[in-house]
Amino acid sequence: MADNHKRVVLVGAGNVATHLGMALQKAGYEIVQVFSRTEHSASALAGQLGTEYTVSMETLRPDADLYIVSVKDAVLQSLLPSIVKGREEALFVHTAGSMPMSVWKGIAIRYGVLYPMQTFSKQRPVDFGTVSFFVEANEPDDLETLKQMASSLGAKVYEASSEQRMSLHVAAVFACNFANHMYALSAKLLDKYGMPFEAMLPLIEETADKVHLLSPREAQTGPAIRRDGNVMDKHLDLLADEPILQDLYKKISKSIQEI
Amino acid sequence: MADNHKRVVLVGAGNVATHLGMALQKAGYEIVQVFSRTEHSASALAGQLGTEYTVSMETLRPDADLYIVSVKDAVLQSLLPSIVKGREEALFVHTAGSMPMSVWKGIAIRYGVLYPMQTFSKQRPVDFGTVSFFVEANEPDDLETLKQMASSLGAKVYEASSEQRMSLHVAAVFACNFANHMYALSAKLLDKYGMPFEAMLPLIEETADKVHLLSPREAQTGPAIRRDGNVMDKHLDLLADEPILQDLYKKISKSIQEI
Repeated sequence: MADNHKRVVLVGAGNVATHLGMALQKAGYEIVQVFSRTEHSASALAGQLGTEYTVSMETLRPDADLYIVSVKDAVLQSLLPSIVKGREEALFVHTAGSMPMSVWKGIAIRYGVLYPMQTFSKQRPVDFGTVSFFVEANEPDDLETLKQMASSLGAKVYEASSEQRMSLHVAAVFACNFANHMYALSAKLLDKYGMPFEAMLPLIEETADKVHLLSPREAQTGPAIRRDGNVMDKHLDLLADEPILQDLYKKISKSIQEI
Repeated sequence: MADNHKRVVLVGAGNVATHLGMALQKAGYEIVQVFSRTEHSASALAGQLGTEYTVSMETLRPDADLYIVSVKDAVLQSLLPSIVKGREEALFVHTAGSMPMSVWKGIAIRYGVLYPMQTFSKQRPVDFGTVSFFVEANEPDDLETLKQMASSLGAKVYEASSEQRMSLHVAAVFACNFANHMYALSAKLLDKYGMPFEAMLPLIEETADKVHLLSPREAQTGPAIRRDGNVMDKHLDLLADEPILQDLYKKISKSIQEI
């Protein structure tokens, strides 16, 4: 089945397209073109992949088996008709956690979603062997193709409906983006008092490791869960000149006590 | 120097006392007694260490070189005079991040703080080789003793003033307790939509690993930092029946945009 979809066009040249494109090429897929409206991004990724690029929909290749669309959610919908037009035989997927599969409905015939749930930074290589993929397609054969594609990268593959994928995306914002922001606030405080952020790394690692064995609720420690009002008051005092941090401290502590 | 402080009494039998006591014993220190007002805790830890225990200050041993006090901040201050009385020659330390060293002033002659910054759960062994210790003492010799003690556990040791330690403690609440709560909220959402929390673990790991190479600010991803209002609105919709999560989503996103 995967053989039918070996020729791939990447629409978008951001972090997801870059890492996915590199990994697919390594797994034997042929990336035949990169599209981005930003010439710099398009040429950079095409260069890395040794393939061609375009900045215009007019010259988007019509002869690929699979079009993978990884663009900002805000522009995704408006782009879809021009991606599909004249290429109706192909399979079209987007990679957005928070976009329903139905955005393709009435536009493409064969379509789906290939959502790699990981945090991608351009500066950092991604080991797809540790990425969870969530796939969905309107045809069973194409669902199979997407599963095989993700598996060929060594990834864990799950089927997920659009609603489940949306909940995953929100859950990922909490577990990843918001957890990282907690690190950032921690770094800001340490910097203010002349302590190195490096000293915090063992704690960050242990906190992340712990939830492999205990549920996050079981793993919860700290003054809020102990209801140690004494300590919490001192912490709020220290944050007196940081109103945003102080407010977050109160709100998150309350949520810890309520969950 | 460490030789002078080989006989240790643990005052308190909670998570910190348990892990620290076990590690100190392994490193060659002699734990001569465990005190806890809760007989069950005292006997459990004394049993693990093969030493004696007491639940009464009256029978606290007078002949140790070092008394390590790991009790709840709320009871610490009231306990100190009876710990020191009749044992004025010894060195006294507490392990509380948010208690200044000055709580000992006027009570003990030789005193300090030995603060292991890690999240301790009774169910989970602690590798002290990955723990940052922050030490403080009123006498240079005793500071040296505490440094050697932490080093003998394989830990990284930093000197920190009481104010720095307090800021560390608050920073640790953000990086550890609050990050873990973000995992817990994520788990709650996944459970609600019938998805396994396990699928989130690679993302949690990668997020924690990333800040070894990038600063948390550089590592920040997600809709808030991209100012992707479309996605954020959808996420807030999904959280419509979860007012606490919805409020935290807004507040943390705002903080990400402001930092």
